[in-house]
Amino acid sequence: MFEILHKDGKARQGILTINNRSVETPFFMPVVTKGAAKFIDNVALKEIGSDAIICNGFILSVKPGLEVLEKMKGIHNFANYDGIIFTDSGGFQMYSDKLLIKTTDEGIHFKEPWHGEKLLITPEKDMEIQSTVGSDVAMCLDDMPLYGSDKKRIQESVLKTIEWAKRCKQSHDKTKAQKKSEQKLFGIIQGGTYPDLREFCARGIAAMDFDGYAFGGLAIGEPAEKTFEAVSAAIKFIPEEKPRYLMGVGTPELILQAVEKGVDCFDSRYPTMTARNGTLFTNNGQINIDKKDFELDKTPIDPSCNCFTCKNFTKSYIHHLTRLKEPTGHILKTLHNVHWIQNFMKAIRESIKEGKFEEFKHNFLKACSS
Amino acid sequence: MFEILHKDGKARQGILTINNRSVETPFFMPVVTKGAAKFIDNVALKEIGSDAIICNGFILSVKPGLEVLEKMKGIHNFANYDGIIFTDSGGFQMYSDKLLIKTTDEGIHFKEPWHGEKLLITPEKDMEIQSTVGSDVAMCLDDMPLYGSDKKRIQESVLKTIEWAKRCKQSHDKTKAQKKSEQKLFGIIQGGTYPDLREFCARGIAAMDFDGYAFGGLAIGEPAEKTFEAVSAAIKFIPEEKPRYLMGVGTPELILQAVEKGVDCFDSRYPTMTARNGTLFTNNGQINIDKKDFELDKTPIDPSCNCFTCKNFTKSYIHHLTRLKEPTGHILKTLHNVHWIQNFMKAIRESIKEGKFEEFKHNFLKACSS
Repeated sequence: MFEILHKDGKARQGILTINNRSVETPFFMPVVTKGAAKFIDNVALKEIGSDAIICNGFILSVKPGLEVLEKMKGIHNFANYDGIIFTDSGGFQMYSDKLLIKTTDEGIHFKEPWHGEKLLITPEKDMEIQSTVGSDVAMCLDDMPLYGSDKKRIQESVLKTIEWAKRCKQSHDKTKAQKKSEQKLFGIIQGGTYPDLREFCARGIAAMDFDGYAFGGLAIGEPAEKTFEAVSAAIKFIPEEKPRYLMGVGTPELILQAVEKGVDCFDSRYPTMTARNGTLFTNNGQINIDKKDFELDKTPIDPSCNCFTCKNFTKSYIHHLTRLKEPTGHILKTLHNVHWIQNFMKAIRESIKEGKFEEFKHNFLKACSS
Repeated sequence: MFEILHKDGKARQGILTINNRSVETPFFMPVVTKGAAKFIDNVALKEIGSDAIICNGFILSVKPGLEVLEKMKGIHNFANYDGIIFTDSGGFQMYSDKLLIKTTDEGIHFKEPWHGEKLLITPEKDMEIQSTVGSDVAMCLDDMPLYGSDKKRIQESVLKTIEWAKRCKQSHDKTKAQKKSEQKLFGIIQGGTYPDLREFCARGIAAMDFDGYAFGGLAIGEPAEKTFEAVSAAIKFIPEEKPRYLMGVGTPELILQAVEKGVDCFDSRYPTMTARNGTLFTNNGQINIDKKDFELDKTPIDPSCNCFTCKNFTKSYIHHLTRLKEPTGHILKTLHNVHWIQNFMKAIRESIKEGKFEEFKHNFLKACSS
């Protein structure tokens, strides 16, 4: 399933294969919550180098609903995406102020976002949902305290996350055997920004032999040093041969730091969300296309980029569409940002293959700060 | 500039060439008001067979502004569209309840939509705007009474439209000579649904020798018989050899009726606007993809359509995205509707070439009603 092909310091380059679908690591997954990313379709995502995406198991179970997904033969067929599909448990969404009622030992009590119906999602229920959705990789249901919670609350959350991970694993193993499914299951490590709690959680989760390990509850507002202190504290207790996934990270700078520490996998709304606001990736750092400076700029967003948008349109035109909040501007900007980040991931992989990751990182950051 | 190649009854098939760009007639123009259509880019529009589009001269003169358009060498370069660009005068927009202050003999007094500044657009000013925007075809500034206005008001509007057309022509001839421009100018015929006023206006406008003639102020709420009574009353006074343009019409049924009467050119928001609401063209009539019937439908929107959307996605998936109002659903539906209507126009052209237009029309309408 996961093969490491090259190492360069702690950075790794490999290949993850599930259900005859492959993605080279390290990789970045666009967020396709409801079965479509914002302003870009799944065929285009794949074409521009997204060999894996992440959907939201819980949200898909409400709309279109599990019955539809079953009859349409799973999410790959339904959404016409022929790459690796991860599903998130949906826990992240349930922990919003508007939806969360409470968490108990049993599971998460929250309001269903469309009809306001009160629901309880247990680890077992969540595994069943993700199995029916038909993703290649399911994620454990975890308990995620908000950033800024006190240590006691985070301690509780770590214990609950470990307990739920056990139940997820048992339930997943059972379903997998029954359905003869190849679906993989990743454990999630919580612990806020406390290195001791991250270590404790990592030891607990790693003991259960998951197919991969994720760092959850990070990149939610804490400073980057804290993010990587937490990752470093946990990563040494994760088996070397398993894929490691830093959830919610999607900026080039953070991806570089994480790859350096041995992370293989990322997801984030960042590239698509900021595209709509006009924040665009370039090899010289991010630009805000909304700025007056670009009103008469005849060059593409990034002259070294060969995406559809950069091949066809000027900054001046994209600036105009951004000022007017035109949806076609959102399409062109989203396409650029996703294409750019997939190209960036490819360049990272190449640099590891050649044993030049540090050089690549250094040059990239230097170009961005100049 | 305009060559009629085939006739079939009153229906005509020809080719319109301006500035080395050509479009076969009859043709349909997507509405690209602000330099981009909604949810589809200009390169895609051209690729799926839109060899002409219509932009709004006045709106572009405000945003991005004439200075930007001049420096970016005109609308074709700015918006990267390599087909024929018509510009509307913008009069249609100024006649909204929110913007119109009054019309005088001089021109239209109205509020600029972004800053609320009071503006006066005269025929001369409008010609200058459209010349700077750099379209291939400019439209005269006309006076457009709302549907339901009394005959006296429409009579006044006809007189004003004729008077303004004269001033547009004079001003356009002058600018054209100065700039050595190849831009064409189309006259607009008003007259509401009164055949006598349409005839009067057509005679007045035709006497001025425009490069083409448009029917304005129709398809704004009146029954279809009234639309075509008005077109029929006017069309016989327009020189046979000039292109004829029915403004604001974009449904297959109305296009067929108009082509039958000798109309060559159409524009409308209909295909893009209704796509977003879920109304989609098929060879068996329009469907509303929002309907529960399509929840589990594994077939494409139109099985005979070879657009990107129909080749890749099922009705079930499009239904799901429509229910959630997902922008990526809007993209896929817009692409289908524009592709479909351009294919429909192509089929109309083929049928005229083969002398089988009536048969085509009959079969199409029959398939839609079955």
